[in-house]
Amino acid sequence: MEIMIESIGKLVNEFSKLPGVGKKTAQRYAYKVIDMTESEAKEFADAILGVKRKVRYCSVCGNFTEQDVCGVCKTRDHGVICVVKEPRDVAAIEKLHEFKGVYHVLHGTIDPMAGVGPNDIRIRELLARLNEHEVKEVIVATNPDVSGDATAMYLARLIKPLGITVSRLAHGIPVGSEIEYTDDITLTRAFVERNQL
Amino acid sequence: MEIMIESIGKLVNEFSKLPGVGKKTAQRYAYKVIDMTESEAKEFADAILGVKRKVRYCSVCGNFTEQDVCGVCKTRDHGVICVVKEPRDVAAIEKLHEFKGVYHVLHGTIDPMAGVGPNDIRIRELLARLNEHEVKEVIVATNPDVSGDATAMYLARLIKPLGITVSRLAHGIPVGSEIEYTDDITLTRAFVERNQL
Repeated sequence: MEIMIESIGKLVNEFSKLPGVGKKTAQRYAYKVIDMTESEAKEFADAILGVKRKVRYCSVCGNFTEQDVCGVCKTRDHGVICVVKEPRDVAAIEKLHEFKGVYHVLHGTIDPMAGVGPNDIRIRELLARLNEHEVKEVIVATNPDVSGDATAMYLARLIKPLGITVSRLAHGIPVGSEIEYTDDITLTRAFVERNQL
Repeated sequence: MEIMIESIGKLVNEFSKLPGVGKKTAQRYAYKVIDMTESEAKEFADAILGVKRKVRYCSVCGNFTEQDVCGVCKTRDHGVICVVKEPRDVAAIEKLHEFKGVYHVLHGTIDPMAGVGPNDIRIRELLARLNEHEVKEVIVATNPDVSGDATAMYLARLIKPLGITVSRLAHGIPVGSEIEYTDDITLTRAFVERNQL
């Protein structure tokens, strides 16, 4: 656009870097910012800088926190550790208010094709934690894909010999969906992991 | 979420203010910002502040600009003025590289139900421009809704007596669509505005 105003173009470009945001959406966002008051825009900019300045990784579990050790690690039962790939998985599980243990964020899963080996993710840190605390169970909550499965298998082989239970989230038919429309792989796993009534 | 980190919560809240962005999307955006480098985040924040600091309205046409008078008003033919509701309409028309005249942004359309009268939008400024320059035609490109139509009618009644042609963008069947699926109002207007071959 020949009359594109430089500062608007810059902002559109920045918004376009967000996941799933195209040029058109970025433009809508930019117009919204132009409509903001000076102080609203400042709050927005400060929130972006604040996150970068304040958020770090918990030295125990690797999840986001503003302190050295996160609120979950400080207050919860360290006897059960739920292992996840990314911080956003912690957020998804915390929303349930179901799990009362602590987390361990791997920051990735084993993926040889992408050059990610066991030493590239936080497995060493997990093993150290198993020595420090009396851990009864490790729940592996990695995604049900090749890389997530491989990581779960790897962890099980490593941790089970220590006399610690290693479990994995159940795969199966999503609640509320229909068998007819469930994909083949999920349906197969639902058969394999069937439960006695 | 009990473990919600304050600075992340703040940023999610800021992103939620953008049009069409819900909590989930805002969270994805926030995670993206956390993944940015310090300097990337700073550029993002600066872009937001930059827009607020630099962007103002062109003193002639009312479109966004960083100068007193915008690039379009400075360089183009003032003999034809295209009247639009908002700056984003200028962007949509400029993209075509078809229109060679200048614009006039009303910043609204007449809408008595919402308490917006002719004096609340930039009609006075438009009339002043008609006196200043030798204007041959005013193209009214307001949206084809009640408020846009009312504004077009109002402008026509005001400007036609000055001996200036007032035209309106054509309504009709969108190119590439089918008559069968065209809504009734659009189809009716396509009949009314039919062209001789």
